[in-house]
Amino acid sequence: MKIVGEKINGTLSKVKKAVEERDADFIRELARRQVEAGAHWLDVNAGTAPDREPDDLIWLAQTVQEAVDAPLCLDSTNNRALEAALGVVQRTPMINSISGERFRLEGTLPLAAGRGCPVIALALDETGIPKDVEGRMRVVRIVMERTRKAGLPDASVFIDPLVAAIATSQDSGLVAWGTMRQVKAEYPEAGFAMGLSNISFGLPARTLVNQAFFTISMAEGLSLAITDPNNRAIMETLYATQAVLGQDRFCLNYTRAFRAGKIGPKPKV
Amino acid sequence: MKIVGEKINGTLSKVKKAVEERDADFIRELARRQVEAGAHWLDVNAGTAPDREPDDLIWLAQTVQEAVDAPLCLDSTNNRALEAALGVVQRTPMINSISGERFRLEGTLPLAAGRGCPVIALALDETGIPKDVEGRMRVVRIVMERTRKAGLPDASVFIDPLVAAIATSQDSGLVAWGTMRQVKAEYPEAGFAMGLSNISFGLPARTLVNQAFFTISMAEGLSLAITDPNNRAIMETLYATQAVLGQDRFCLNYTRAFRAGKIGPKPKV
Repeated sequence: MKIVGEKINGTLSKVKKAVEERDADFIRELARRQVEAGAHWLDVNAGTAPDREPDDLIWLAQTVQEAVDAPLCLDSTNNRALEAALGVVQRTPMINSISGERFRLEGTLPLAAGRGCPVIALALDETGIPKDVEGRMRVVRIVMERTRKAGLPDASVFIDPLVAAIATSQDSGLVAWGTMRQVKAEYPEAGFAMGLSNISFGLPARTLVNQAFFTISMAEGLSLAITDPNNRAIMETLYATQAVLGQDRFCLNYTRAFRAGKIGPKPKV
Repeated sequence: MKIVGEKINGTLSKVKKAVEERDADFIRELARRQVEAGAHWLDVNAGTAPDREPDDLIWLAQTVQEAVDAPLCLDSTNNRALEAALGVVQRTPMINSISGERFRLEGTLPLAAGRGCPVIALALDETGIPKDVEGRMRVVRIVMERTRKAGLPDASVFIDPLVAAIATSQDSGLVAWGTMRQVKAEYPEAGFAMGLSNISFGLPARTLVNQAFFTISMAEGLSLAITDPNNRAIMETLYATQAVLGQDRFCLNYTRAFRAGKIGPKPKV
């Protein structure tokens, strides 16, 4: 399980302002804090208007890689912005995202495959997000056929089964996990990526719901969690779940994280 | 998922003292607090020497049922104590526990079956706790053959797959869940019971590990969690996990528990 730090995202108002004002210190600090907390990849999303976005994403990518060594996850629906940023990144980035949509398969996928970039692939197409497992698998099968044709190994494709809010869509978690199980049966080398917070939209004390969802998703084989590594509760869930899943020999990572003060009750000051 | 409140247990020193001194107020308060917090069953374990235990378990059972309506889970390895307590309980109790051990199959099981009591059945026998899934299934198959012969329906049998501490037994959770899956395949009507705290023995911040273990165990179909319903973190995990598993229509139980102040950040005083 790897963490993709989600905080450098232009849809967050402070980040939007920092991008517009070219506030490199703010962005670098956000990058460093996420890596120190345990992010393996950093998502970068400029979130600006299409005509500005190529320049903004170039600036964001350059600013972040000045501060940290972690590879980037270039997050955009704008193929021109992705292509521009790909020209300046130093370590092979991940592309967030492709899907069954034509502009992604015909525009984004060749950009990624040409540079051997891993991709996050959303289980949706022009008609939206299919309601059930079989509908999502129809999209996944089309995407996997195309990524294979483009020369991307299955292990470089991270399927995002997509999760709606359980407050209104009660089986949302079950459909996501069911899709993961079917993907594992048909494409055992493929990975999985998911955001952890959509599931709790509209509910109080959202972190509790995100934690339960995260734990089961890890048990189902989640490879990339797109989340805030500075959220202590989420990192507690990560370490504890790795331990109970037998992925943490002698629980050394867990006890080390505890001793470092990263998890467990905060010492009283 | 039902909660078996675990706190009336003579191996806890305060409870031991209360049993010895016949401190009914202390026991009644412990019973009420657990039921108010959400316990569906109350475990009662006198934990005293064999010659005292029949009288002590009678007194405990009577004291608890004076205070609350919740059914009891009679917890003893002493068949004489179980038989004595069965003579005074009003609602059909659960028996905790039987196993593949001869004195349980020949002594405890007939007591339970004769009164139609549900039983918790541990996946162990005279030789100890088998290391792997297949070893535990050998015990389970013997137990299920005997409970069927004794006339207990499979739905009244709650298999406890048994969980060792992950700090020393890394695959402990995986073996327990693997046993549950195999039991479901062979005995789809049987239920599951587990204590939530053994898994974290020897680790710091144990509740974090218990929570992750609880969430995955619920996803695997746990029917009875033997735990402390006054542990806020455990109840948060229960409500959140039921929601993400699609077992809480419109998340009504979750939001109700939040509004009642049972889950979520505590209001600052």
